Amino acid sequence: MISVEEARSRILQPLQPLAPEIVALSDAWRRVLAAPVTARLTQPPADVSAMDGYALRAADAEPGATLHQIGEAPAGHPFAGTLGAGETVRIFTGSIIPAGADAILLQEDASAAGPAITVNQAVPPGRHIRRRGEDFAEGNIILHAGARLTARQIGLAAAANHPWLTVHRRPQIAILATGDEIAMPGDSIPPGGIISSNSHLVAALVRAAGGVPTLLPVARDHPDVIAEAAAQATGADLLVTIGGASVGTYDVVQAGLQRHGFALDFWKIAMRPGKPMISGHIGALPVLGLPGNPVSAAICAVLFLLPALHRLQGLPAGAPPTIQALAGAPLRANDHRADHLRATLSRDSAGRLVATPFPKQDSAMLSLLSQAECLILRAPHAAPVEPGAPLEIILLNTEGI
Amino acid sequence: MISVEEARSRILQPLQPLAPEIVALSDAWRRVLAAPVTARLTQPPADVSAMDGYALRAADAEPGATLHQIGEAPAGHPFAGTLGAGETVRIFTGSIIPAGADAILLQEDASAAGPAITVNQAVPPGRHIRRRGEDFAEGNIILHAGARLTARQIGLAAAANHPWLTVHRRPQIAILATGDEIAMPGDSIPPGGIISSNSHLVAALVRAAGGVPTLLPVARDHPDVIAEAAAQATGADLLVTIGGASVGTYDVVQAGLQRHGFALDFWKIAMRPGKPMISGHIGALPVLGLPGNPVSAAICAVLFLLPALHRLQGLPAGAPPTIQALAGAPLRANDHRADHLRATLSRDSAGRLVATPFPKQDSAMLSLLSQAECLILRAPHAAPVEPGAPLEIILLNTEGI
Repeated sequence: MISVEEARSRILQPLQPLAPEIVALSDAWRRVLAAPVTARLTQPPADVSAMDGYALRAADAEPGATLHQIGEAPAGHPFAGTLGAGETVRIFTGSIIPAGADAILLQEDASAAGPAITVNQAVPPGRHIRRRGEDFAEGNIILHAGARLTARQIGLAAAANHPWLTVHRRPQIAILATGDEIAMPGDSIPPGGIISSNSHLVAALVRAAGGVPTLLPVARDHPDVIAEAAAQATGADLLVTIGGASVGTYDVVQAGLQRHGFALDFWKIAMRPGKPMISGHIGALPVLGLPGNPVSAAICAVLFLLPALHRLQGLPAGAPPTIQALAGAPLRANDHRADHLRATLSRDSAGRLVATPFPKQDSAMLSLLSQAECLILRAPHAAPVEPGAPLEIILLNTEGI
Repeated sequence: MISVEEARSRILQPLQPLAPEIVALSDAWRRVLAAPVTARLTQPPADVSAMDGYALRAADAEPGATLHQIGEAPAGHPFAGTLGAGETVRIFTGSIIPAGADAILLQEDASAAGPAITVNQAVPPGRHIRRRGEDFAEGNIILHAGARLTARQIGLAAAANHPWLTVHRRPQIAILATGDEIAMPGDSIPPGGIISSNSHLVAALVRAAGGVPTLLPVARDHPDVIAEAAAQATGADLLVTIGGASVGTYDVVQAGLQRHGFALDFWKIAMRPGKPMISGHIGALPVLGLPGNPVSAAICAVLFLLPALHRLQGLPAGAPPTIQALAGAPLRANDHRADHLRATLSRDSAGRLVATPFPKQDSAMLSLLSQAECLILRAPHAAPVEPGAPLEIILLNTEGI
């Protein structure tokens, strides 16, 4: 058995960010930049007004002074002339400051009688002027490679005049559920059978992490069938099998994969739930074999598949982020396997986060898994914990997981 | 001017969750349930083994005893007979417990020599047996209406035998950018012009919140053009206009909308940035008029459009969730407008969250907005704040915003 950290590092080691592709700006949300984005223009393109009001010379803005309005500059229609002493130009937010002006008088600080504009408030030079390039200048790197694009970054890329962006391709993940007992939802269920829930959970998790899932037809428990099914994963960036990962007589996934020259790296991790997880590859195709218990499969997917999806997309990839919470119940000393307790979250009277494990931690309890808000991490051989002691947790109620 | 809370409440008040539709389980991730999901089967369907091993009578499991293996029960192939005294059946995780057995001996606690199975470890009755219905029982409500479906909940719905789910329709949001100065990325930019960034930011934010954006062609600053463009929003659940929301001579959005019988509810909110935001409706079509400054538009979208998208999808809708952080810099006393300072996050030596506002808070600084990790909320007339004092913040670095 190897540690969780070693398993993750060995899974990630051979993975490389996928090749880039060009996508329209409107399709780029949540995609990961494969190249930095450089501003193609300067913003603002010139000194512009930050408010609606009157462009003038600050020296003229004596309270009580009356200026002569010589024109106006609505946004998109710059004033072509030059403003002289005692003159003003009506201006609007975003309009270019006319030549000769050095400040903006707010419209609420002025009284207009036809072209006669009376100043009711002094303004210092530069008042309410946004300077050329204050937001960004042509040639500035405004977004870095490796960023998962947010709505705000999409807006910034638009402002910098990018109709297209270069992003890493989405990882194509083939998902192969195995087992004679497995039916799809709505199909007839064989005696002793069970519905394939893991494949749907994993497919949604792949989507949540930015990948594209392909559900392969469910494979019966026979090496030939599994071999044939695995052959259908050609072209995927990663093959995820579900079930048949342990050592029972009927755990035939390894046998099936081996007919394609499957090279096993490891299949036992010192963790709970989810000890039997296969990792290896068929030629260049990485293979992750999740255990069949739903909770084990889901937790292995969070700990190993999500980082793999991150690495394939060019994101930083490693252990899921943890935060600290206080224990809401006593925890026993842990054995030699890293444990991942399903837990709910609350706040104590001081507003601190409290994580309370469900009394039942059975690895088949999908209903509790779906209600869990976090996983409490228990390191191998961790000492007993009293209520109120600090714990490391992985939040589950984020990112649609 | 009305408060942020009153504005949000008046925007949300007329909105109802959209009608339901049926989607395939594989398309249901992040959709919002319009009806509860009831288990269509019992899980486990019978008492099943939690481990690979041997089913037996606990009374027979004396260390040193040798039992006779009378058959096996791989998952999906239940053992048809009844197990008698001194007998055992080879069993695997998820297999139905044979009649007559009441416990499971782990395979690592047994020695097999052909059909002779020697017990190396006593087992109490019920050991390693998952009881029928322990996860859920047919007829149980396993998911409630109003849940935004996570990957784990998709797995649970699958396990409960649902190939289809009933969800609220996605809100169709028409987005109308206005302004003579506005060009699309890659198009030629007029003199004094600017790229439409807000519409792309808002479109991505609509996607992030589960809606479907439609970008209407950019409308010039003329009431006729805006009226014609707004007519193209027919069929949308909400029309978002951008720009032209304030009182300047060239703010013609209200004039244009009024040709369609636009009924204005309000257009001034006591907030910064983003004071001029229009809310009203054209017949049954709600209209939200965001200000033209990129940061103002984005913050109004977070404060008002996101809750509207939540309400339309049947989610709880209200103020964005806030958490507490400590001030990373002194803050001045606030005036009568609620302020929303763009800020970065860090942790102090005690691990507490610290929010530090950018020195520049100009509402045109899209580069800073895209780097912000949170908004610091400053209530109207809030007192000055010293570094280290508690603040309420809205996280921006979540949900792809």
